[in-house]
Amino acid sequence: MDDAPDDRQRWAVLIEYDGSGLVGWQRQENGLSVQQLLEEAAARMAGGREVWSVTAGRTDARVHATGQVAHLDFPIDMPLNTRAVRDGLSFHLKPHPVAILNAARVEPTWNARFSAVRRRYRYRVLNRPTRPALEANRVWHVKFPLDVSAMQKAAKLLLGQHDFSTFRAVACQAKSPIRTLDRLDVRREGELIFFDVEARSFLHHQVRNLVGTLQLVGCGRWTAERLQAALEACDRRAGGPTAPAEGLYLVGVDYDPDPFVTRDRYAHLETAL
Amino acid sequence: MDDAPDDRQRWAVLIEYDGSGLVGWQRQENGLSVQQLLEEAAARMAGGREVWSVTAGRTDARVHATGQVAHLDFPIDMPLNTRAVRDGLSFHLKPHPVAILNAARVEPTWNARFSAVRRRYRYRVLNRPTRPALEANRVWHVKFPLDVSAMQKAAKLLLGQHDFSTFRAVACQAKSPIRTLDRLDVRREGELIFFDVEARSFLHHQVRNLVGTLQLVGCGRWTAERLQAALEACDRRAGGPTAPAEGLYLVGVDYDPDPFVTRDRYAHLETAL
Repeated sequence: MDDAPDDRQRWAVLIEYDGSGLVGWQRQENGLSVQQLLEEAAARMAGGREVWSVTAGRTDARVHATGQVAHLDFPIDMPLNTRAVRDGLSFHLKPHPVAILNAARVEPTWNARFSAVRRRYRYRVLNRPTRPALEANRVWHVKFPLDVSAMQKAAKLLLGQHDFSTFRAVACQAKSPIRTLDRLDVRREGELIFFDVEARSFLHHQVRNLVGTLQLVGCGRWTAERLQAALEACDRRAGGPTAPAEGLYLVGVDYDPDPFVTRDRYAHLETAL
Repeated sequence: MDDAPDDRQRWAVLIEYDGSGLVGWQRQENGLSVQQLLEEAAARMAGGREVWSVTAGRTDARVHATGQVAHLDFPIDMPLNTRAVRDGLSFHLKPHPVAILNAARVEPTWNARFSAVRRRYRYRVLNRPTRPALEANRVWHVKFPLDVSAMQKAAKLLLGQHDFSTFRAVACQAKSPIRTLDRLDVRREGELIFFDVEARSFLHHQVRNLVGTLQLVGCGRWTAERLQAALEACDRRAGGPTAPAEGLYLVGVDYDPDPFVTRDRYAHLETAL
């Protein structure tokens, strides 16, 4: 199923979710997924008729999103507009922590996954002695002080096109380990450290493996040279640990042209409060 | 109980909590309070001996804190230091969303409530059509667009010393309704609107009643003149609604001198690098 069939209308939706209690994007037997919740909400809008979805980023269990994008193929006979799709889905998604920020009718050939030209992720580390209370399940808590400027320097080595096998989950199903990293910025804001990462597409666990390895540089266990050697080894066993899922946010997916007239963005993830 | 008895050592603690599942600061029969959790954690550190606490701000149910301050009177024979108090209490507070960010030994006459010279609150509104997913229980969701500059202008009328009876809960036990509001800043950051409010002390529900009333100005139902008249009426019935508890954060309490060596709780991170 790539193009929408003739009896369907395709809608792009912009989605926010708190991944804490979810098994990730993809349907699974062992818990609630964003896909299942979204498709069931759409089916209720469609009077019980099934509606399928395709997403830009199949996030893992406990990963959050402030700007996930998916498309849904509703029956052609439904009278829909942006507000009806946005509010109807959000209503039927209650009480789950999944909400629709925007919606746009797209061409039957438009595809949330294959039309995407860039995925943007943010990873958040809470770097202080005390465990998080307000940010529980929303950050990776690292107790020892991290050297942000050392991580910034090391991050530059990872930019551009590389074989990222060192940072690729063993279970990754991508045909090629070659990816082009367009951005990997590291900065501190008070107790939080942000990793902003962008690429056309990512390998499975790539962002979390990059952050887990940069953290070794940040705490002084690894030099930038060691990181360079790990990248060149093209072997997962040469890389650092996988950073926990709860610090990761899919903050945006870019398309050209953008299907959404306006983008609601969550600027406040900039700060803890 | 004001001063610490001779057989006790008094400690000030800086506390963060997610108030969502709590009944507020004060002990109650119907659920978990910060006071109960803190005193029980302290008692476990003290080998079962009771430890009492006094707080700077008795926050309501579902109100959060990033900078609450309390004092605790531990038995004099306990060998304590800043790290032992901070980490010991944080450990025994698990798995509850309450954590100790800092601790400092203070004089027996120092009092978290009576020594405080300023309380600082932040109120957060999520101003967008879609309900919160990631920020559920941490914001007041207002769907209709709020005019921040109208609220800014109206907020200026409330600054300084006034009889705040219009913004005082009926149950408020303060002797006088006169308070001096030192700060009431309103600003937008993306989808969020922040109200930053500071005073030496507040009446019960004062911040939430101020925000609930300013919101009437923000959505165009009230003019600034109406707000002025409401203030001058000195009657709770003249004021607007009480904004919900979940948007309110106690962000700091000031003392002179400050008991904490580093009030900026990340300062040690900056210098350790």
